[in-house]
Amino acid sequence: MLMSYTAAVAGCTGYAGGEVLRLLAGHPMIEIGALTAGASAGTLLGEHHPNLLDLYDRPVVETTAENLAGHDVVFLALPHGASAAVADLLPAETLVIDCGADHRLTSAERWRAFYGTPYAGAWPYGLPELPGQRERLRGARRIAVCGCYVATSTLGLLPALTGGLIAGRDITIAAASGTSGAGRNPRPNLLGSETAGSVSAYGVGGTHRHIPEILQNLELLGARSPSISFTPLLAPMQRGILAVITAPVDPSITAEQVHESYRSAYADEPFVRVLPPGVWPASGSVLGSNSVVVNATVDEAAGRLVAVSALDNLTKGTAGSAVQSMNLALGLTETTGLSTMGVAP
Amino acid sequence: MLMSYTAAVAGCTGYAGGEVLRLLAGHPMIEIGALTAGASAGTLLGEHHPNLLDLYDRPVVETTAENLAGHDVVFLALPHGASAAVADLLPAETLVIDCGADHRLTSAERWRAFYGTPYAGAWPYGLPELPGQRERLRGARRIAVCGCYVATSTLGLLPALTGGLIAGRDITIAAASGTSGAGRNPRPNLLGSETAGSVSAYGVGGTHRHIPEILQNLELLGARSPSISFTPLLAPMQRGILAVITAPVDPSITAEQVHESYRSAYADEPFVRVLPPGVWPASGSVLGSNSVVVNATVDEAAGRLVAVSALDNLTKGTAGSAVQSMNLALGLTETTGLSTMGVAP
Amino acid sequence: MLMSYTAAVAGCTGYAGGEVLRLLAGHPMIEIGALTAGASAGTLLGEHHPNLLDLYDRPVVETTAENLAGHDVVFLALPHGASAAVADLLPAETLVIDCGADHRLTSAERWRAFYGTPYAGAWPYGLPELPGQRERLRGARRIAVCGCYVATSTLGLLPALTGGLIAGRDITIAAASGTSGAGRNPRPNLLGSETAGSVSAYGVGGTHRHIPEILQNLELLGARSPSISFTPLLAPMQRGILAVITAPVDPSITAEQVHESYRSAYADEPFVRVLPPGVWPASGSVLGSNSVVVNATVDEAAGRLVAVSALDNLTKGTAGSAVQSMNLALGLTETTGLSTMGVAP
Amino acid sequence: MLMSYTAAVAGCTGYAGGEVLRLLAGHPMIEIGALTAGASAGTLLGEHHPNLLDLYDRPVVETTAENLAGHDVVFLALPHGASAAVADLLPAETLVIDCGADHRLTSAERWRAFYGTPYAGAWPYGLPELPGQRERLRGARRIAVCGCYVATSTLGLLPALTGGLIAGRDITIAAASGTSGAGRNPRPNLLGSETAGSVSAYGVGGTHRHIPEILQNLELLGARSPSISFTPLLAPMQRGILAVITAPVDPSITAEQVHESYRSAYADEPFVRVLPPGVWPASGSVLGSNSVVVNATVDEAAGRLVAVSALDNLTKGTAGSAVQSMNLALGLTETTGLSTMGVAP
Repeated sequence: MLMSYTAAVAGCTGYAGGEVLRLLAGHPMIEIGALTAGASAGTLLGEHHPNLLDLYDRPVVETTAENLAGHDVVFLALPHGASAAVADLLPAETLVIDCGADHRLTSAERWRAFYGTPYAGAWPYGLPELPGQRERLRGARRIAVCGCYVATSTLGLLPALTGGLIAGRDITIAAASGTSGAGRNPRPNLLGSETAGSVSAYGVGGTHRHIPEILQNLELLGARSPSISFTPLLAPMQRGILAVITAPVDPSITAEQVHESYRSAYADEPFVRVLPPGVWPASGSVLGSNSVVVNATVDEAAGRLVAVSALDNLTKGTAGSAVQSMNLALGLTETTGLSTMGVAP
Repeated sequence: MLMSYTAAVAGCTGYAGGEVLRLLAGHPMIEIGALTAGASAGTLLGEHHPNLLDLYDRPVVETTAENLAGHDVVFLALPHGASAAVADLLPAETLVIDCGADHRLTSAERWRAFYGTPYAGAWPYGLPELPGQRERLRGARRIAVCGCYVATSTLGLLPALTGGLIAGRDITIAAASGTSGAGRNPRPNLLGSETAGSVSAYGVGGTHRHIPEILQNLELLGARSPSISFTPLLAPMQRGILAVITAPVDPSITAEQVHESYRSAYADEPFVRVLPPGVWPASGSVLGSNSVVVNATVDEAAGRLVAVSALDNLTKGTAGSAVQSMNLALGLTETTGLSTMGVAP
Repeated sequence: MLMSYTAAVAGCTGYAGGEVLRLLAGHPMIEIGALTAGASAGTLLGEHHPNLLDLYDRPVVETTAENLAGHDVVFLALPHGASAAVADLLPAETLVIDCGADHRLTSAERWRAFYGTPYAGAWPYGLPELPGQRERLRGARRIAVCGCYVATSTLGLLPALTGGLIAGRDITIAAASGTSGAGRNPRPNLLGSETAGSVSAYGVGGTHRHIPEILQNLELLGARSPSISFTPLLAPMQRGILAVITAPVDPSITAEQVHESYRSAYADEPFVRVLPPGVWPASGSVLGSNSVVVNATVDEAAGRLVAVSALDNLTKGTAGSAVQSMNLALGLTETTGLSTMGVAP
Repeated sequence: MLMSYTAAVAGCTGYAGGEVLRLLAGHPMIEIGALTAGASAGTLLGEHHPNLLDLYDRPVVETTAENLAGHDVVFLALPHGASAAVADLLPAETLVIDCGADHRLTSAERWRAFYGTPYAGAWPYGLPELPGQRERLRGARRIAVCGCYVATSTLGLLPALTGGLIAGRDITIAAASGTSGAGRNPRPNLLGSETAGSVSAYGVGGTHRHIPEILQNLELLGARSPSISFTPLLAPMQRGILAVITAPVDPSITAEQVHESYRSAYADEPFVRVLPPGVWPASGSVLGSNSVVVNATVDEAAGRLVAVSALDNLTKGTAGSAVQSMNLALGLTETTGLSTMGVAP
């Protein structure tokens, strides 16, 4: 008989919380416990996530210490700045996995520069593919899951940095995200009438909050004084991020070398797939899965390595990495309950 | 240790074949064997289904008796009229599951009226929710999976007929389908530039080939001389069907009675969910799942029962019902390898 | 030299107001005057309608008698129930064109049954294609523009009724609309993440407020005691409505007769096009235009005439019919400033 | 009374040809003449462009000297490599406007490097916003309209180069295009089932044929030895291109200076709009119009100027610039028949 763990989700009514629940419902060793929220307490989960049919009638209760008590795992899918207070309600032996940004940055200075609010300290970082990170996640009881643009960008660059193909300076990233990345708070610019049929830019000029987190990862991958120009785009789709990444590359390095570096760097990764030469990622091919698809080449005339990476912002970009990290923290097989197969077409 | 079965897919490069493979890859008791096709033999599966990352490098071989031999199950995902010839290549003890239309109709006359080609005879019908159908599917070795519009329409009407709420005459159905229902054959009118941002009608006026199959099911549900006006629409989405169904209803029947009939009819069905009163189906909520969402009411002024049903045309509408039927035929738990949770948003 | 008129738009920040402005900006005889709103007074028009580049810096002022004074035409694009109060601010000689529902229904009883609020009385009805309606609109100074579903449904049925092909009873209509029909008020279910990739039903069972208006038009077209089952759908697109309409038809009537009736009924209509036999409307083909595309046939087995009609809900369904009606009221050429050519693909 | 010109369109069945016709139909001084094609000769225009309702029944005839003779203007909307042969059929005094690439590049070497086919020589270049270009277009009788990605990229960079803000080296461009940019040739990867819900990359690594054309424009704008890394993306929409452009910038240059340079550079351009500081382009806001929306800033930490530009690939990116160039060549007001107002939402 399989041992099982109980998991609660605080902030269950948003998109991140809903995706965590979708994955947990398919996880053979997790029993879903309390579903908590703020203003939505007293409703049914199905009112927020009609796709989660087997949990449709589960009540949403208030986010309190009492309601979250007694679970082996508590996922936090809360607005920025709310995680620390909820985590404080929980005993040290509870595995707390924060899908938000509050505990990702190790630099208080960077935190303050981009977030403005008080710095809450860093937790072990939920992107298992980073070198050495699996060791840090095994047995951890507090985990800060990576940001969605960050996961896409970091995994698009990792082999170039660990393979010494690039130095990490003057990187450019343009990344298109589906609208679910902007969350569920109803704002006029996120109405379907506005987002359909249109690609738009936002946060242009180095202001997006995922920038310090990407820089932190690049440093962890060996870059000294990395710099990135990061431009996020909103694309007319529900899920998915595709990032176009360029970085100065030594003219002696060939496209074949780049591809081979990427292949070998990810050869043993269960969730990262380097596509064949000349085949480029489509975000739709990984929808609903925990997979990342990547490819890279050299643009000789431009003197730049060009990498393209894609993942599902809600799955591998948030809830999938959360469950993957949970598996590691609990000592389970890392891939349990996670699919590599995208729902397509 | 679990027993496992081997399954081949003939016609693996189309959308139905791809969805069968996506589901089989997550099925704990199936080992995927030969992947066959016609003109695409010699390619890799990943060239056709880049979402099926774990099967990316699997070779596509020719659809021959030799290549299909030795499997416990063979799925046929072939163009109309091609199934009989391939089924003839396979021994009687092989479980053959046809995702196409060739063996669905029990009436040679209806077949000829709508298809024109020679009638190939009927197989046990792969829509387990029909009364008495599970018994017919258990142990079956030839199964004809239901059509996608047919599953949506039939399950939207079933409780109204079995509950005696309607007689089955003068039914109207307008059903909007995602573009994957039209298959993968590149035609100008199926280009993304044509299908995006537009709803269009086709096959208007009683010409769609799913009509005789719906009528057959209505008769099986007790309707005498049923008649339907069926209008299919193409909607700007990849997957999903939503059907609006109306039927004359006795003025004495109330909305509450209708809802209660639907609830009780489907109370034990693992994949059909009747939504709360006043909550109406959205096709997106069941994307990638084997679930059907249904609701119904009475329009008193119009004198009609109105039901709305939605499912994923590739999953419950094709490959999901195929796997569900396979589970029954092999004596497995009916729900094995099938999710009830839609990928949303 | 051309004479020109000044036009103000009250409620300029919503989708209807924006579309009125887009059309007026291309109208050779209209000079755009005051742009008014409620809470958005003090902003620039470009903040709400970045597509209206030539009006980007125009200030939005408060909806007051003073601001609306002195215009030849005032368009009202206000929430339900707000039009009467604003119209009362304006002199009788000002042409007031209400894009809302407040003054459409001639029956106080029907108004109260569907709207609940006090009845404000009917104005000349802004659907010029109705028989005799052009005469009523010429010189009118108060006009209530048709509803969007209503225009689609009415024009889809008109030739069948005026040609005596159907009686107008037991009609069924399922109509799919783009999301702009639901307006710009941010609601969670209208977020792009919810509306993309999904068709959903709402207002099922005879509750939609456009039903009494359709019935009123059917009566005007000669139907006695008409009845309709009307089901609206939300489709994943910004604009457009496509309606599938069925009605009992005498078995002696052929598809050819039906098509010919439609052709001849609309032969002189500048904005209604009957497609060739077998070619069915796509809503995308009329995007941004004032055109309606229609076709109809007979489903013999079902005993029903089936008509399909499509238009752009914001143009012909609202602002286009408003400008067309304005042209008639002002004695201008009816088609001035209105395009028949959809923006496609 | 206005003088009018006759215009023929060779290659009228594709998307570029259709858009030329949509614009010409609204042009007050153009009378549409012959509509020609290759394999589609003998069909009606409405079979290809059901949106062009007023031209629905116009016959498509073969592309021959005879059919094209006697027109003042002939638009060529042909596959790569086919323009020269058709242009040779036409007298020198006919205004020939090529929407294809054949006559855009002034460098035979660059042509051969990217196209491989024989070099056909350069014609006056149809992007009137380039400095000095209006003079070259006035009275011209052969015009090669700019490429769609090229127009977006060039107009996004123009003020940065003419204002001396950047040198033109090490530019990066990631540009997302709607699917109509890929044309109407049915290919499996362009099916709606593939393109919906997904952003994908293609032509990565410096291989796209618009690169030499962008470089040519940058040189014309004063860049010496320009270099660009250009990555095209396919976005799930029908129309529109949005480009994210970065270029090394001197650290002394501020965001305010950049914005001011852009504002002043485009102050007199009728079709280019610089958005207010902090407001970034959305491709949907210019749909169906001839407008370009642009904005730019400085990312200090990255040391790069970042510009974002958006236009409709079929209008300003092709047919709109073609008509704008035609107006100049014929001595008409440049903006005749062209709208600045996007069709949105």
